[in-house]
Amino acid sequence: MLVASGTNRTERLYDRAVEQRVSLITLGVADQARARAFYERLGWTTNAAPEDDVVFFQAGGLIVALWDRDQLAVDSCVTDGGGWGGVTLAYNVGSPADVDATIAEAEAAGAAIPRHGAETFWGGYSGVFVDPDGHPWEVAHNPHWTLRPDGSVQLASD
Amino acid sequence: MLVASGTNRTERLYDRAVEQRVSLITLGVADQARARAFYERLGWTTNAAPEDDVVFFQAGGLIVALWDRDQLAVDSCVTDGGGWGGVTLAYNVGSPADVDATIAEAEAAGAAIPRHGAETFWGGYSGVFVDPDGHPWEVAHNPHWTLRPDGSVQLASD
Repeated sequence: MLVASGTNRTERLYDRAVEQRVSLITLGVADQARARAFYERLGWTTNAAPEDDVVFFQAGGLIVALWDRDQLAVDSCVTDGGGWGGVTLAYNVGSPADVDATIAEAEAAGAAIPRHGAETFWGGYSGVFVDPDGHPWEVAHNPHWTLRPDGSVQLASD
Repeated sequence: MLVASGTNRTERLYDRAVEQRVSLITLGVADQARARAFYERLGWTTNAAPEDDVVFFQAGGLIVALWDRDQLAVDSCVTDGGGWGGVTLAYNVGSPADVDATIAEAEAAGAAIPRHGAETFWGGYSGVFVDPDGHPWEVAHNPHWTLRPDGSVQLASD
């Protein structure tokens, strides 16, 4: 942030701006064992002990955590609306066939599938699965973006 | 997923399991211009045009999007609980002082600060800011994790 100083120049108040990144996504869950088992059935692995309060999954350069939803609400200083709250995650894949395969994997793992793979209004192909705690994931093939071998996604315009 | 086949061996039903990664986080917003301006005040940049329905920010190896919350709910096949819905993002930094500086940046950008930086029960230091649409971000220093120069975060145990 640049602020006017008392002199005739501006100076940086802090060392740096907030970097353009996300470190951790915590999903609030009602039943930790059930939630963990679902993501493990998808193929995800964690070193968390069975008795750990929080389960952390390394997900590329960030971490996905599962934690008791009531505790997460308190820790986040928010009131729980009780349902979905305006955040949707997406998992991008390399082709429409991969979308269908991923949706099938999620269904086999116990997800609800409210929208199967289909062409989208933005020129891609996607479906949606919902995890046991009601968190929706869009599974998408976006031909306008670059999906790198390491799983990272790059906007075409950048 | 491994399934029993008709023969006396198991075979892979799909090419691969669901990889352990997240491609996109979409935040539902009530006022796109207000939301975009907030993240731009934090220092984030986007190539989105002013008239674009969705604003995409490249955030390390994933993308953060801002989109109309009602449209996102329809697209995600969920009912909007109207408040927070069990997802909290976190932004990790290298020191307690960086937590305080980031919280101050967010406050200057217009965020609510329901919890200022303080030591946490898990041995770290964190605070919380809430964006104009009610999405909370924990800002944390976790001495148990590795924060790499590229901004990625690594669990100590992996």
